Amino acid sequence: MGSLWEIVLNDYNYKNNRKYETIFTLSNGYRGFRGVQEFSKIFEAGNFIAGIFDKNDAQVTEIVNCQNPLAFNIYFDSEKVDIDFSKVLEFERKLNMKEGILYSKYLLKLPSGKVVKIETDRFVSRNNVHRWAQRYKITPVNFSGKMFIENIIDGTVTNSSFDVENKTKHLNVTDVLDLKPGIALKSKTIDKCIEIIETAYINCEEKGNIFTKRKFKRFGETARELYETYVKEAVEYVIVKYGTTYTSRDSDKDISELSKEELLKFLYDGYEKEKNLHSEKVKELWDMIDIIIKGDDEAQRGIRFNLYHLSSSAYDGDDRVSIAAKALHGEGYKGHVFWDTEIFMLPFFIYTNPKVARSLLMYRYNTLNGARENAKLNGYKGAQFPWESADDGLEVTPKWGFDYDGNPVRIWTGDEEFHINSDIAFGIWEYYRATGDEEFLLKYGIEIFLDTAKFWNSRIEYNEKYDRYEINKVIGPDEFHEHINNNVYTNYLAKWNIKKALQLVEILKVRNEKLVNRLCSFLGITEDDFKEWNEKANKIYIPMSKDGKIIEQFEGYFELDDIDIKEYDENGMPAWPDLKGLKLHETQLIKQADVIMLMLLLGDEFDLETKKINYEYYEKRTMHKSSLSPSMYSIMGLNVGDTHNSYKYFMKTIYTDLEDNQGNTDFGLHAASTGGSWQSAVFGFGGFSVDKDEIPNFSPWIPEKWNQLTYKINWKSALIKVSVMKGKVEIESSKDITIKVYGRKYEAAKNEKIIIDKH
Amino acid sequence: MGSLWEIVLNDYNYKNNRKYETIFTLSNGYRGFRGVQEFSKIFEAGNFIAGIFDKNDAQVTEIVNCQNPLAFNIYFDSEKVDIDFSKVLEFERKLNMKEGILYSKYLLKLPSGKVVKIETDRFVSRNNVHRWAQRYKITPVNFSGKMFIENIIDGTVTNSSFDVENKTKHLNVTDVLDLKPGIALKSKTIDKCIEIIETAYINCEEKGNIFTKRKFKRFGETARELYETYVKEAVEYVIVKYGTTYTSRDSDKDISELSKEELLKFLYDGYEKEKNLHSEKVKELWDMIDIIIKGDDEAQRGIRFNLYHLSSSAYDGDDRVSIAAKALHGEGYKGHVFWDTEIFMLPFFIYTNPKVARSLLMYRYNTLNGARENAKLNGYKGAQFPWESADDGLEVTPKWGFDYDGNPVRIWTGDEEFHINSDIAFGIWEYYRATGDEEFLLKYGIEIFLDTAKFWNSRIEYNEKYDRYEINKVIGPDEFHEHINNNVYTNYLAKWNIKKALQLVEILKVRNEKLVNRLCSFLGITEDDFKEWNEKANKIYIPMSKDGKIIEQFEGYFELDDIDIKEYDENGMPAWPDLKGLKLHETQLIKQADVIMLMLLLGDEFDLETKKINYEYYEKRTMHKSSLSPSMYSIMGLNVGDTHNSYKYFMKTIYTDLEDNQGNTDFGLHAASTGGSWQSAVFGFGGFSVDKDEIPNFSPWIPEKWNQLTYKINWKSALIKVSVMKGKVEIESSKDITIKVYGRKYEAAKNEKIIIDKH
Repeated sequence: MGSLWEIVLNDYNYKNNRKYETIFTLSNGYRGFRGVQEFSKIFEAGNFIAGIFDKNDAQVTEIVNCQNPLAFNIYFDSEKVDIDFSKVLEFERKLNMKEGILYSKYLLKLPSGKVVKIETDRFVSRNNVHRWAQRYKITPVNFSGKMFIENIIDGTVTNSSFDVENKTKHLNVTDVLDLKPGIALKSKTIDKCIEIIETAYINCEEKGNIFTKRKFKRFGETARELYETYVKEAVEYVIVKYGTTYTSRDSDKDISELSKEELLKFLYDGYEKEKNLHSEKVKELWDMIDIIIKGDDEAQRGIRFNLYHLSSSAYDGDDRVSIAAKALHGEGYKGHVFWDTEIFMLPFFIYTNPKVARSLLMYRYNTLNGARENAKLNGYKGAQFPWESADDGLEVTPKWGFDYDGNPVRIWTGDEEFHINSDIAFGIWEYYRATGDEEFLLKYGIEIFLDTAKFWNSRIEYNEKYDRYEINKVIGPDEFHEHINNNVYTNYLAKWNIKKALQLVEILKVRNEKLVNRLCSFLGITEDDFKEWNEKANKIYIPMSKDGKIIEQFEGYFELDDIDIKEYDENGMPAWPDLKGLKLHETQLIKQADVIMLMLLLGDEFDLETKKINYEYYEKRTMHKSSLSPSMYSIMGLNVGDTHNSYKYFMKTIYTDLEDNQGNTDFGLHAASTGGSWQSAVFGFGGFSVDKDEIPNFSPWIPEKWNQLTYKINWKSALIKVSVMKGKVEIESSKDITIKVYGRKYEAAKNEKIIIDKH
Repeated sequence: MGSLWEIVLNDYNYKNNRKYETIFTLSNGYRGFRGVQEFSKIFEAGNFIAGIFDKNDAQVTEIVNCQNPLAFNIYFDSEKVDIDFSKVLEFERKLNMKEGILYSKYLLKLPSGKVVKIETDRFVSRNNVHRWAQRYKITPVNFSGKMFIENIIDGTVTNSSFDVENKTKHLNVTDVLDLKPGIALKSKTIDKCIEIIETAYINCEEKGNIFTKRKFKRFGETARELYETYVKEAVEYVIVKYGTTYTSRDSDKDISELSKEELLKFLYDGYEKEKNLHSEKVKELWDMIDIIIKGDDEAQRGIRFNLYHLSSSAYDGDDRVSIAAKALHGEGYKGHVFWDTEIFMLPFFIYTNPKVARSLLMYRYNTLNGARENAKLNGYKGAQFPWESADDGLEVTPKWGFDYDGNPVRIWTGDEEFHINSDIAFGIWEYYRATGDEEFLLKYGIEIFLDTAKFWNSRIEYNEKYDRYEINKVIGPDEFHEHINNNVYTNYLAKWNIKKALQLVEILKVRNEKLVNRLCSFLGITEDDFKEWNEKANKIYIPMSKDGKIIEQFEGYFELDDIDIKEYDENGMPAWPDLKGLKLHETQLIKQADVIMLMLLLGDEFDLETKKINYEYYEKRTMHKSSLSPSMYSIMGLNVGDTHNSYKYFMKTIYTDLEDNQGNTDFGLHAASTGGSWQSAVFGFGGFSVDKDEIPNFSPWIPEKWNQLTYKINWKSALIKVSVMKGKVEIESSKDITIKVYGRKYEAAKNEKIIIDKH
């Protein structure tokens, strides 16, 4: 298992290649390289560059799988090293999360009987996002002879390479360049003509240039450089493949020149230097994001896996991109951005890296025109953010997919899952509340708030009979039920969205009335509109049970057939109960947290009793068929005292990909679940919340076997470090601050540890 | 082992894929398809179209491996059928030589547990050389589900795909076409801009169209059409891939149109009809070429393997092509034509299919200008045919290769192996003698004879001391010895070449003096030249031993170190003796028949005693490191009474590829050896020869275990059938003819069997 900083794979089985490609993905926010198994033909190459989308003949616009610069082959004489046709004598792949380095070690017996030892390490630089490199240490164990190194940039890559039906090519190769030495391959996306160049250079390290020959060839859409040398038995040869990447999104300059210059500078710096600078950056990140769990190695390693990949998936260098549901780790969900980002991932960044959080929200601002276009197309006003978002904010949810039995099924989320609009507004509010970044709110946030409020105002429908406003024909977070009326989550947050917009306008007017007025004028909103919004918002309908205690997920939900979950599978997750011939949507079974989500987002608007009753009601009916669900139940479980289930749901969440417990890790990271993992640790066990008065609250609880839980958060530019131990809580802030611990107020002085005994 | 008409492979091992690609190659003379293992990624695709050569960045001009239209994938859901990642429950590949059909049968358990049965049959039509097809019978054994058929024409093909160092691409893909349905891929060679188009069409047979969806996509240099259907457990689905091919060498018309029209006509005709017409043609060939050996199944199957592939390797439709050393079966020797064709393969065609023999000789006529260019470049006169020949007669022998230890070594054959010129002249003479085709001789043959004679006249060097003409610094058939002087084979045939040219001129003058004079004037040859040639030729030096009995292979050969071959390997072939530190060329060890070759070609110029003495001398010193050697020793062995070795060498020859006893069947057919097999059977065991008076002689001998040997030959438009049985010989001619049997003259009347008892 390696150290608590390592993810280790010790058995080779080609059937697991794609899963571990996801787990071993290296990303720096600018780009993600799937952790392709070296020396195998069984792989799904993945080179995803944030923001590069294309439709061409695909079902919908999707993230482009760019030309693959990782391709690297070793031959001894004419025998290619191929793990699937060799005897694997020793095997190890290891992700060192502390350093951000992917290691591998092979001892292979080739069909000819030659035994070769190969060790590699690879990084995708966080120091300079345009750089990546992989080092190979090659030892011919029992022979001497000719060795060839084949340096390739493969432009034949397609999207959906494993999906025979939907395989699509989004790139035209426009240039295959010989850099003498080094190679480059330039391509252009089909729709928007974005140019991408990858360069690659092979260098012998430590021993000077061992190569005796070099040949460059262009094979159609492939750049290929072949090096020859003579290698001696039992001698180790160290070779590094250096790579740089630029796209026409990065600069107006000639990207071929930029990329070549970058390559030369990289070579000048050398592998070790860049690797160390990269690892320094990764370690700096860890200093802020790490969550220490003592006494539970499984939990410790698991939570770090999530923190590592989530923090790898974004950087603050590009305001036009956000994090996809599968991050830069795979083609699942086509690289689209969902509510997953604002509701599940954003809190992690808000509290550990606010600059990135701001950048993620800027993506929404930069796609606002697309959202306005969506509203217009659907006959609404303001901005309607897409349920699935690519590069321009237009709706890109596929219209068709497959159900659990593989039958084609119409997907309605793009038409009906409106809550994304208030989710984004909520993200802005949460960011602003934690950071106090008024500049952002004034210049960007308020515009989104107003335009989503405007959208809701046009979307709500008046019901004369009850004198109320309704939102009908929607899908809430629980996607088992479609075309429903008055989903509480949707209605409640729509109302919140409008009211919060009005409230923020009032606040901002005090700061900069001119600017607010100019914006309102630009958006065509008058004081009369504000009044109307307020009146209507007050009348938005929130369905409740007759006794007013259990919130009815949507109108008519309680009338559905009430089938209980009785059995649990080997992972401790609900097994499908007997539906007695009913369709799922005819039952009260739900896919994922819905009412519970609402109670977590707006925790201070619901009392503990209500939370408890609703948790008990819905927990029994939730199938957790989304990786977004267990973490939320984990947090709410801790709120209401169901600690046993909380731990189970927490472990389920942090092991979503490592255990592949959703069965689709092949297709990419469950990024929302990585965010859920952080929330579960910090909001759940760590007991962190913010109350109505905007005071940070800490009411932690840790399982018996944990000796310690430590985490850090940023709160209005103060760094707060929280350590939860058996019987006490230690809190230290970098600034004077008022906090509450277990409901009691404390004034924490700058850099002074306050210790609270647990009662 | 299957019937005596079948070559069967029952075990699957990917390591044998390339060898069996050669053995299972289907060719019709126009094109050869290597017998690529279906459903494996371990293959060396081979689509060779006779006459298409290119250099680009290869070492020398070479046969082009054209775009691969055989590519065909089956998927169940998204799982690709891949034999290397399946459990192979049943496996059979079978070449039915009588029909010219390649069959295969698989029962595979896929990684998912799905079991699928697939049977295929494939042909490359001899009825219409532009057509080929493969049928797939697919049965999902234990499941129902989605099936996808992927029809591909792969334009990413390279030459030397297994040779990482020399991989080369000779084609630019110029067009990827959707024929709706059907696909086409057009390419252009780099040097001469020859265009090649392959089309392919997928059709459901017997059951109507089972497909529910079709998608066409262009993936870079690949045309791809995807069909979808739902298949039911235990039901067989029959699908045929139809293909047509045209090149700009075939026609001045638009080859895209030609190919598409051909495809439509082919579809109209259907698989069964074309297959039957093809098999009819193959059977017609067998009627003429078959050699029946009763009592020795191994020999029977083996000889047929050679006859099948040799007859497949040529057709009479293109006078600009000949048969390469590896035929259309592989890239070995780069598709070049050697003396192998005239000396080893041509006799088979002369005596069984004179039209093809004529076409092969026309190739030399059509490359005569290249040969003249070679002579000029080297400072000689007339025409110097290249040791290795591609499409234009220019010398294309590589200058560098590798020795037995893999060290780079200068190849001198292109500079020094001059005997190719008389070999070609000899082929013309042999053809003319057997067919009486005066028209060919007059219009084409004599021009070659005169220009090669002219070459020799400029190549021989006068030695004043001995008043003789010498040919120095040459390589003879035995390539162990380079830069030698006065190789007997070379000198003797050079002399023969000149004298025969003079003799033929005399004969032809009687027929058409005007034409001969015009030719002589065109070639700048006068009566004085003829006189000079004759005088010089008479003085060409032929080295002999002092007693005048053993011919000295070349001047100084007898002085070399005389190392005996003492041991034989497991195949009964000579093992390397201890060289005692000497270089090969310092010993009398020879690579292959040399003096013996001469005595076989000009058999009536040497008496039996001389043949015997020389056979005994050289047999002991011959390493048979060329597949051209054993067959010749087999024939000479029978001439001189060494019947035991004759049978051994015969079997060695006919199993060259089936046993891979030269260790390089991967790279293509040993085509010369297939011709040697025929010669060994007909000239050797069959005892057929032609004497000075041009009377066919028959002096057969068959091994004890053979009950019967039957063969047919054409002799001056008479068809002669010869059956050799224990104790008697039966001969029947389709015309009145004079023959000799065991030295006695017989007048065989038309269609009357003469039976001669063997004494």
